[in-house]
Amino acid sequence: MEKHCVGIDIGGTSVKFGLFDGKGTLREKWSIPTRTENGGAQIIPDIGASLRERLAGLELKPEQLAGAGVGVPGQVSQEGEVLFAENLGWYHVPLARQLSSLAGMPVRVENDANLAALGEIWKGSGARCHSMIFVTLGTGIGCGIVVNGRILSGADGAAGEIGHMHVEDHMTERCNCGKYGCLEQLASGTGLRRLAERALASSAEPSLLRGQEVSAKTIFEAAREGDTLAVRVADQFGEYLGKALASCTCVLNPEVVVIGGGVSKAGEIVLEYVRKHYREYAYPPCEHTAFRLAALGSRAGIYGGARLIIGEEMGTD
Amino acid sequence: MEKHCVGIDIGGTSVKFGLFDGKGTLREKWSIPTRTENGGAQIIPDIGASLRERLAGLELKPEQLAGAGVGVPGQVSQEGEVLFAENLGWYHVPLARQLSSLAGMPVRVENDANLAALGEIWKGSGARCHSMIFVTLGTGIGCGIVVNGRILSGADGAAGEIGHMHVEDHMTERCNCGKYGCLEQLASGTGLRRLAERALASSAEPSLLRGQEVSAKTIFEAAREGDTLAVRVADQFGEYLGKALASCTCVLNPEVVVIGGGVSKAGEIVLEYVRKHYREYAYPPCEHTAFRLAALGSRAGIYGGARLIIGEEMGTD
Repeated sequence: MEKHCVGIDIGGTSVKFGLFDGKGTLREKWSIPTRTENGGAQIIPDIGASLRERLAGLELKPEQLAGAGVGVPGQVSQEGEVLFAENLGWYHVPLARQLSSLAGMPVRVENDANLAALGEIWKGSGARCHSMIFVTLGTGIGCGIVVNGRILSGADGAAGEIGHMHVEDHMTERCNCGKYGCLEQLASGTGLRRLAERALASSAEPSLLRGQEVSAKTIFEAAREGDTLAVRVADQFGEYLGKALASCTCVLNPEVVVIGGGVSKAGEIVLEYVRKHYREYAYPPCEHTAFRLAALGSRAGIYGGARLIIGEEMGTD
Repeated sequence: MEKHCVGIDIGGTSVKFGLFDGKGTLREKWSIPTRTENGGAQIIPDIGASLRERLAGLELKPEQLAGAGVGVPGQVSQEGEVLFAENLGWYHVPLARQLSSLAGMPVRVENDANLAALGEIWKGSGARCHSMIFVTLGTGIGCGIVVNGRILSGADGAAGEIGHMHVEDHMTERCNCGKYGCLEQLASGTGLRRLAERALASSAEPSLLRGQEVSAKTIFEAAREGDTLAVRVADQFGEYLGKALASCTCVLNPEVVVIGGGVSKAGEIVLEYVRKHYREYAYPPCEHTAFRLAALGSRAGIYGGARLIIGEEMGTD
């Protein structure tokens, strides 16, 4: 009998679930709200209850499941303890142990960006690659690195934190991490908006961006129409991210760089601006590293969760 | 019967050999000159002859050897072909195949900086660690990265080329790689000399460095004695390298950063200048990554060569 497995992606607003068969095909997909009140005390019981209910409805017993792979927006120990996940209100939560006991199956836990990377390299834009840098550009910058088909976690679970690479010496605003001039401050969705607002405030130059909401979407739309100010902003964004990715590839030399998250919805134009500057700064043997947009969108995490179980437990690595 | 193995480190001037027993103890150590004439055509036959002669003298038959791990100053394919090694005059040399057939034992080939890193994490300053960034500061900058006890080679064998990380936007001289503003131009031994010569030429400020040979050694000696100009140069060096290493650790989050090569002979003072700036720029969870000087000196490569064989063939990983 072929065992199923579950991928679970815990976000600040909802928890996404995916039930996969042993071949890695997504069979069912559902979600529940994330109840972050009381330090997130209800999140694990809610996940356990939702799993039990759904599996019962499908007439699947826990022993028919190889396990669950879970992504969390925070730092995770090798033993599956969540060291901190601010958006969930969690500090030192032994997620793997607690959920495993509630759900009656093995549970493995990873940082959500790492898990999304694993999903993309398994079934998305990194398919058939063995190494990848996956960057999500949203409110912040998330990044997951895959080397030889496996997540690079780092000694303290802090590998792939390229959002906190120092890229600007003249930054006066402080990053969430406490330092100044992090990539996340300048090349996330928030960073793009900051660059545009600075440009708009520093001159009276006419721009399509004046009098409308400034976002990654509107900035790239205006740039596509040749709006000079928007082109300049997109170019600055591309220079920050392209230069930082050139630093990453001379360290890692991956097969592919995949860009996802809200900003990537603006399409290929995002890659064009990044690649242009990337090539200026890249170590020559890495100049032609492939750049692709992410393919799985918000499902990357549940795919990665399934892969964590299928790769490890079912020996199809 | 316990098998021995050989570590071989091919440099531009000499080829170093180490014979190790199955427990990883260095039993014999010798070297021969590197004959780089005629596109380095004699190098492999010379290595084969030296190996046969030495093993015969020790009454060891090739079948008593588990293999040889060889380091080369160049880019190496996963199949052990040397894609290029400029200092040897080699382009597309199938080293593993040719040497294996001459020596009658399995041969594995790696980039020399990667191999030295493997040596240091096995028996040197990275002992008991699982992940490390090893940087050698000499004429250029070499770097080897170890993740989960294994060398990170990258998709094209170009991982760990942090000497070519872009660190300076205002550089007018071109790096060997063809770009401008690479770390190697400013924080290698050559880079340190460049920084000192610039400082000496730009003012008439008195300095212990005037009227003597300017080298990493004399710069750090002068800095130790409080020479203002030398302190400023050491500080610039520390800022370039510290900032670049902060970019590396937010990507890799290793347990330890080990610094070797000629510049490191100046001692702990090198680490002090690097660490000071590293902490300014590091992602906070990585601020306290350990920094150490290399321990094995020029023997790191032969140790790494042995480890390549012992780790893989003898299953003591």
